[in-house]
Amino acid sequence: MKTIGVGLIGTGFMGKCHALAWNAVGTVFGDVPDIRLVHLGEASADLAARRGREFGFAKASGDWRAVIGDPEVDIVSITTPNQFHPEMAIAALEAGKHVWCEKPMAPTLAEADSMRAAARRSGKAAILGYNYIQSPAFRHIRKLLDEQAIGDIIHLRIEMDEDFMAGPDGPFFWKHEAASGYGALDDFAVHPLSLITKMFGRVARVITDMTKPFADRALPGGGRRAVETYDVASSLFHLENGIAGTLLVNRSAWGRKGRIQIQIFGSTGSIVFDQERFNEIQLYVTSDRPTEQGFRTILIGPGHPPYDRYIPAPGHGLGFNDLKTIECRELIAALDGQPANVIDFEEGVEIERTVHAMADSFAKSAWTDVR
Amino acid sequence: MKTIGVGLIGTGFMGKCHALAWNAVGTVFGDVPDIRLVHLGEASADLAARRGREFGFAKASGDWRAVIGDPEVDIVSITTPNQFHPEMAIAALEAGKHVWCEKPMAPTLAEADSMRAAARRSGKAAILGYNYIQSPAFRHIRKLLDEQAIGDIIHLRIEMDEDFMAGPDGPFFWKHEAASGYGALDDFAVHPLSLITKMFGRVARVITDMTKPFADRALPGGGRRAVETYDVASSLFHLENGIAGTLLVNRSAWGRKGRIQIQIFGSTGSIVFDQERFNEIQLYVTSDRPTEQGFRTILIGPGHPPYDRYIPAPGHGLGFNDLKTIECRELIAALDGQPANVIDFEEGVEIERTVHAMADSFAKSAWTDVR
Amino acid sequence: MKTIGVGLIGTGFMGKCHALAWNAVGTVFGDVPDIRLVHLGEASADLAARRGREFGFAKASGDWRAVIGDPEVDIVSITTPNQFHPEMAIAALEAGKHVWCEKPMAPTLAEADSMRAAARRSGKAAILGYNYIQSPAFRHIRKLLDEQAIGDIIHLRIEMDEDFMAGPDGPFFWKHEAASGYGALDDFAVHPLSLITKMFGRVARVITDMTKPFADRALPGGGRRAVETYDVASSLFHLENGIAGTLLVNRSAWGRKGRIQIQIFGSTGSIVFDQERFNEIQLYVTSDRPTEQGFRTILIGPGHPPYDRYIPAPGHGLGFNDLKTIECRELIAALDGQPANVIDFEEGVEIERTVHAMADSFAKSAWTDVR
Amino acid sequence: MKTIGVGLIGTGFMGKCHALAWNAVGTVFGDVPDIRLVHLGEASADLAARRGREFGFAKASGDWRAVIGDPEVDIVSITTPNQFHPEMAIAALEAGKHVWCEKPMAPTLAEADSMRAAARRSGKAAILGYNYIQSPAFRHIRKLLDEQAIGDIIHLRIEMDEDFMAGPDGPFFWKHEAASGYGALDDFAVHPLSLITKMFGRVARVITDMTKPFADRALPGGGRRAVETYDVASSLFHLENGIAGTLLVNRSAWGRKGRIQIQIFGSTGSIVFDQERFNEIQLYVTSDRPTEQGFRTILIGPGHPPYDRYIPAPGHGLGFNDLKTIECRELIAALDGQPANVIDFEEGVEIERTVHAMADSFAKSAWTDVR
Repeated sequence: MKTIGVGLIGTGFMGKCHALAWNAVGTVFGDVPDIRLVHLGEASADLAARRGREFGFAKASGDWRAVIGDPEVDIVSITTPNQFHPEMAIAALEAGKHVWCEKPMAPTLAEADSMRAAARRSGKAAILGYNYIQSPAFRHIRKLLDEQAIGDIIHLRIEMDEDFMAGPDGPFFWKHEAASGYGALDDFAVHPLSLITKMFGRVARVITDMTKPFADRALPGGGRRAVETYDVASSLFHLENGIAGTLLVNRSAWGRKGRIQIQIFGSTGSIVFDQERFNEIQLYVTSDRPTEQGFRTILIGPGHPPYDRYIPAPGHGLGFNDLKTIECRELIAALDGQPANVIDFEEGVEIERTVHAMADSFAKSAWTDVR
Repeated sequence: MKTIGVGLIGTGFMGKCHALAWNAVGTVFGDVPDIRLVHLGEASADLAARRGREFGFAKASGDWRAVIGDPEVDIVSITTPNQFHPEMAIAALEAGKHVWCEKPMAPTLAEADSMRAAARRSGKAAILGYNYIQSPAFRHIRKLLDEQAIGDIIHLRIEMDEDFMAGPDGPFFWKHEAASGYGALDDFAVHPLSLITKMFGRVARVITDMTKPFADRALPGGGRRAVETYDVASSLFHLENGIAGTLLVNRSAWGRKGRIQIQIFGSTGSIVFDQERFNEIQLYVTSDRPTEQGFRTILIGPGHPPYDRYIPAPGHGLGFNDLKTIECRELIAALDGQPANVIDFEEGVEIERTVHAMADSFAKSAWTDVR
Repeated sequence: MKTIGVGLIGTGFMGKCHALAWNAVGTVFGDVPDIRLVHLGEASADLAARRGREFGFAKASGDWRAVIGDPEVDIVSITTPNQFHPEMAIAALEAGKHVWCEKPMAPTLAEADSMRAAARRSGKAAILGYNYIQSPAFRHIRKLLDEQAIGDIIHLRIEMDEDFMAGPDGPFFWKHEAASGYGALDDFAVHPLSLITKMFGRVARVITDMTKPFADRALPGGGRRAVETYDVASSLFHLENGIAGTLLVNRSAWGRKGRIQIQIFGSTGSIVFDQERFNEIQLYVTSDRPTEQGFRTILIGPGHPPYDRYIPAPGHGLGFNDLKTIECRELIAALDGQPANVIDFEEGVEIERTVHAMADSFAKSAWTDVR
Repeated sequence: MKTIGVGLIGTGFMGKCHALAWNAVGTVFGDVPDIRLVHLGEASADLAARRGREFGFAKASGDWRAVIGDPEVDIVSITTPNQFHPEMAIAALEAGKHVWCEKPMAPTLAEADSMRAAARRSGKAAILGYNYIQSPAFRHIRKLLDEQAIGDIIHLRIEMDEDFMAGPDGPFFWKHEAASGYGALDDFAVHPLSLITKMFGRVARVITDMTKPFADRALPGGGRRAVETYDVASSLFHLENGIAGTLLVNRSAWGRKGRIQIQIFGSTGSIVFDQERFNEIQLYVTSDRPTEQGFRTILIGPGHPPYDRYIPAPGHGLGFNDLKTIECRELIAALDGQPANVIDFEEGVEIERTVHAMADSFAKSAWTDVR
């Protein structure tokens, strides 16, 4: 491709993040086609026009179908709430567009399956926005694992915690309704599962426990309503490759803001990582003299690509939004048929299948096979 | 009591630790009876004599029954390997001695039960050496919980990891035999369970997964033998008070040396603690202005008793062996019928019952009630 | 201004950083004029054309004077090596352009003075690229200081360390020649001084010691040459407001990658900050109950503007390049005559005057007044 | 010596610390003579009797001269306030006793000199209580330096901070009077200087700045009095071996409780240490592959003697009081004429000479030679 015509639907947190990525990817990486910001869609024409101006898009519409129907658009960034993903993504794929869709794919596994089917039929790229797999630190961890830097993997632990739902004082809102899903399991678990997928492959079996810390919450108009979703979910799992581990998530974890802690125990060392300090890797190896062994705090630098495309000096730090630009670069490679570090609809369905199996295992109080 | 006559059986790691505690407790705390180091027992008369001289005991014997039978001995420190605890502790109690016994109580639950029965019959103090409950930091955490400093508790996570069994290169030894128990579950789980007990009470239900990282190990004389115990154990649990949590242990965790990490999530804050830095507490509370909220690293000082009995300046740090001296002071209070922060044979049996239930739940692959 | 026409000279580390900022500032902040990327200048027409395409500039030239002479250009980003700053900045100002120039201003104080004079004559904005003053963390520290959150300031310590010059093995290059300046003092000291300026104003008196760790270095063509610059500089200082402090810099500090550690001691608390973890602030205040006092690790979030313009969730982290975009937004405010958080040529000269006074104090081995 | 008869004068913080050390040294190390706790001296007979009982001394007197005159006493621990050290230490040495005296030696250099003279005349051991040189971490740092683990040393920074004098609200007391000395310089600087001495030898030249954060303080009986001592002292220095560095101390540093941070920069690595976490060493070496270089947090364990004498498992942590027991073991070696890791009156005078030179350099505002 010599140019890429971009359509964007949605301009919230992730919409802005996509827009920043499309604006920056050429400057950061250089070796990409010309990016043309063609058409932005929002819920109203007014908001679309305003965001279009801010984000630098040529056209703006209050109807997302106009974006998908625009012949100048080659790829559509879909950043609306999850429940709209299936309709929009399938329509875009059927219109012959590539799709870059935020995760999770859809509220139900059936819808996610239908999105995958549409992608298969279309032959177009259908990529999910799993940005945590893009950080130079995580990429380097994968390299270390490939190199057997910590030997054979014997065990794995992952935690993901934030505090946006913490405390009993927040009012009842849609995330407390069962219709929104299971709770923390939907909000968080797909992220660590994306990391597990890239490091070790798929999950085979799970057993999950869930906790509802606050029985009811105040309704905005007065009165209280019973909470139907679970803020805490703790899982034991076995991967298809035989590795066992734990995946613990909590969206009522006061003090945790963006924690995704990974502990990987190997036969000759350990790796620890925390997304709250995602420009650092903790590495312990037994090749050091015993009296000097200790976890090393490795600060990410130009030796950990693609950090070098951003900053030539080490230890200066990438930001969260930079991860989306790296994802954009990988996506462009995928469009071109090159090997790319992305999670597409094929693999995305499997991640969501695992989440549903976790919920099932809780309902049944029993170990459950994912597939 | 005006004086306490001390007998000590065993002079390994814990035996030395008891000896140091008995030597220091008067100097540190002042308000205790005169401690007389009466009689030390070891496997041989020679070793007993040597250690008796080093540790400052008046008499020394190669037969532990001589210690228990010594009329000048009021209390017996039992620090031998676990399998000897039942016989020694029961004999000491039946001889009318108080007992200070290292944990765990015994390899089997039946033996632990018989030790408890002996303690009940004797009317003597029968205290276990759960020293981690003695640190000023842990005591302060309990105070914070009592004061509702982080509100109601909504979830709990504990990890205990070391690397003394890590890597495939260590030879086969008795801890790899099934006769020694389950593995990490026995070695480690009683410690976090002692902390849980003191903070929140007993465990009601569990489900555990266990991992055997290395299928076999080299025999010292050549050849290899299959490993029968599990180095990793991961449990989901519910406490009797309704709190859910996770307890993860790993004795093959390269880089972890004495980690016992606790994460307590409450309705208005969080507490994090790690035994590897046991002179520090991490506290997050929501009473701070939002823009200044963050985990505080509290350095233990004179405001966190009984640190003040050791050092009048904060932040200078207690050591691991100091915890045993604090335990000794609590034990002396117990001998005197005063309230004391100890775990006795009554509560110790319940801790060990939980460990056995964890192993059962793994065998059955199902949630299991502890009692 | 309704639109801003941008010229860019230089496309190295900082040139790319400016280009990213100009590309992102509208999307991030929304409330800015239309940014038109008009003209890019590089050392050769070929390189200019290539970078112009990557960075999204409409025109590109191999002669920087073409950029300055372009009537569509309103402001010129100057990102070439220091020795070119005076000529370019003065020419741009004299051509009626605003100037955004990387720091330090110039190798000599006389040149920096002439740049300031040109800015005064022009009446145009002349802003320096001191990006570390832009981080949400640093802005919040200034707010805390203004609010007397740690009371009156009693002492100040700053360190800036990297390891790009560490070890004896690197070859001799231009930074080892006296013509390049003093050494670490030029490379680093302006950064902490920009922070000091924004927090507390100007430096009044200094005494500095400097160290040359490696007497000579290998010449690329063979042989060795004596090193003429100093990798380490340590200063005691008094500010004009009476506060005393220390400023320590080291460009041969193995393991330090982008460390700028600030320790501010106040009458009721302390603040500690490290640029290597610039999404965090360490705050200690005495309003907490004594037994819960401790340094809090505050993770930057939406409550610390302008983080909220990037990410609505706390703790996700900005990157180094984001600081330049914030600087760009401040610069745009300055162009519009609004209050802006920038360091202009007026204040920039004073920072560089301090650096020269430090070098003088070393030469004289005596306390030296800055002005 | 087959037995050591111990006298102890003073039972405050350090007196108790000596008593604990004398009580524990045999149990910990085994290979020492029998320690007999002979005679304890305090300000009153009552207090002496009480402490004697608590600490396990056979005799107790309200007159320190009785301790020194006791023929059963071989060595006298002197732990009274500094101003009493000269009279007591000289009397003890003249009575033919070995002396173990807390630091600093004396308020004036003349008195310290006379103590050294007395030690020389006596031929007895005269050891100072510099316990920070005893930690396994510090010993290991010295080993690493000896092994050239970080190559040649190019620069050194030390900070020592506490907050016991922080804030304006504490009342005026004797430490605010000029008669007590210079302030933080006396309270703190001897400690880092003891570490410098053991690592690198003596200080040759200094220049110091001092700060008095609070002009006056409330008198207990009403009114206010001008503070005469300095809470902050910052020094640049050159060692006799040519290494330059900085030594910064602050006793008004809110949040610092026992901080002694050392940063050692070498030609092939760096070492960082902080006494607040004195069971850890931070080590950065360039022998690691560049992409895995980082500061390692080494947890002290049995491979770092004499930790192994305390605990056979790594990472469990020694305490502050354990350092005094190690010091006691070294002292016993010194009594026996063996090589010992101690600072005696000879070296102690040189440390105090450096402190006085620092104060002189502040008075003169000029670089000052130590000797």
